[in-house]
Amino acid sequence: MNKIAVVGSMAFDSIETPTGKAENVVGGAATYFALSASFFAPVAMVAVVGEDFPTAELDFLKSRGIDISGIEIAKGGRTFRWSGRYHENMNLRDTLDLQLNVFADFSPKLPGSYRDSDYCFLANINPSLQLGVLDQLNKPHLVGADTMNFWIETTRPELEKLLHKVEILTINDEEAGQLSGEHNIVLAARKIISMGPKHVIIKRGEYGALHFSADSIFAVPAYPLENVVDPTGAGDTFAGGLMGSLASAGSNPPTSQHIRQAIAYGTVMASFVVEDFGFARLRKLTRDDIDHRYRQFIALTQI
Amino acid sequence: MNKIAVVGSMAFDSIETPTGKAENVVGGAATYFALSASFFAPVAMVAVVGEDFPTAELDFLKSRGIDISGIEIAKGGRTFRWSGRYHENMNLRDTLDLQLNVFADFSPKLPGSYRDSDYCFLANINPSLQLGVLDQLNKPHLVGADTMNFWIETTRPELEKLLHKVEILTINDEEAGQLSGEHNIVLAARKIISMGPKHVIIKRGEYGALHFSADSIFAVPAYPLENVVDPTGAGDTFAGGLMGSLASAGSNPPTSQHIRQAIAYGTVMASFVVEDFGFARLRKLTRDDIDHRYRQFIALTQI
Repeated sequence: MNKIAVVGSMAFDSIETPTGKAENVVGGAATYFALSASFFAPVAMVAVVGEDFPTAELDFLKSRGIDISGIEIAKGGRTFRWSGRYHENMNLRDTLDLQLNVFADFSPKLPGSYRDSDYCFLANINPSLQLGVLDQLNKPHLVGADTMNFWIETTRPELEKLLHKVEILTINDEEAGQLSGEHNIVLAARKIISMGPKHVIIKRGEYGALHFSADSIFAVPAYPLENVVDPTGAGDTFAGGLMGSLASAGSNPPTSQHIRQAIAYGTVMASFVVEDFGFARLRKLTRDDIDHRYRQFIALTQI
Repeated sequence: MNKIAVVGSMAFDSIETPTGKAENVVGGAATYFALSASFFAPVAMVAVVGEDFPTAELDFLKSRGIDISGIEIAKGGRTFRWSGRYHENMNLRDTLDLQLNVFADFSPKLPGSYRDSDYCFLANINPSLQLGVLDQLNKPHLVGADTMNFWIETTRPELEKLLHKVEILTINDEEAGQLSGEHNIVLAARKIISMGPKHVIIKRGEYGALHFSADSIFAVPAYPLENVVDPTGAGDTFAGGLMGSLASAGSNPPTSQHIRQAIAYGTVMASFVVEDFGFARLRKLTRDDIDHRYRQFIALTQI
């Protein structure tokens, strides 16, 4: 089966939402992505943690079949820490504290066994590092990437270089506007496609996602939930389901049908992760749970 | 074919959006609803205008096959006027001026020929007046209604009485929260269903719509547009397409399939009206345009 290499952050998060709080739960974009994708295809992580990172958590990743040989444990270092508080409208949050720690000097190095990965996801880190990862891969079928406002503002030349090497860009609507200079979401997506990616997927949180390619648009709502506990990691969990589903389908390039199914699986995975703090909901999730909700999602979007 | 009686406002609107402005264009909920529904089924309007209302505009409504015998022209009166400015984010607007004029004393009286209408839509007016309209109908198959924050705050007992007599409530997400006291949209819709309506349709502007009944949820995105000129009337135009499509299908009660198609037609109609100021885009619209975009909409939501 096609292997997915993912590079990104691993972290301890302290999270406050309108419904509760959780202290020092394991998070980070690479973690959410890898756990989500692991339900669909083999995953290999590239990340860095400090010596304070619990072995039990690394063992849990391994128990999901994830290759963690690319996770560096930095001697004497502390893991990246983030602390944030969500508003009543959980699309909004404030960062209360940020300690980069070992993540400040992250320089992703791929183990030899990762180099022939057919699929790669470059989670939200400095575009120079994302480019460095691509240089270490032999010839991936499909590269996906995420980015954020900070890199759009401060490292645009590197980001533009990256966009030429990426098939799929996942980005939220505000960032799409910022990257393209277009307020309208359709025009923004067209502009971004002209910058390189064949597929632009605009993430809109509780409002779902829009997919744009040169010749088509696809729109899905989010899965309506009665109980949203913690939106942290939803975007990376979405990307994990998306890339995992594509890797599992294996067509190269992906068909339009596979892309749509992959976006639906991404939506379903994101709907699970927000039901509890951190990735707690993913710990006990089964492939049956996923397929059951996928069928419900199809039913509730079918005209 | 099943006739739809609609009661609501007719107005002159002065509108500023980030892309331009329009002065004293004909608007009002009943107008938008009626024009939109007229592409699907016979419509009969109940409304009031002043002597300043142009005969040419009434003639245009007639040219669309709309029965205007229930539009009262109040002697010596002036038509309702609204003036507003949209933000860069066109989900937000400020009212700059509001002159109720003849609308302040609106007391809807249905011509005898309206009384056996099978379908009825009570656009956003005082719930007491909405109840008064229902008393004048013989035995409609299906009653839809809209409301707004003002009535939720000031006339809750009358609104609650109305909800027991309504099959379909269209409402935006903020108002749904206010009416139900629930922040979560799924819980809000469930609560509203327990208050009477069999179908609650939550309008989310550029993010689409959610439909809830006792045993199902249906979610659609909005039709993605490159050029949104003026969102005024989008909700009422949506309701017109919805009720028009249901009246044209004619099943009593409507099937789940008809409800979903009707919501898709409502979405398509709303996507047209926002492409120009007021209802300018509907003046030259054809049924072919509608069916063409409907097919595109199905294609872009199909997983």
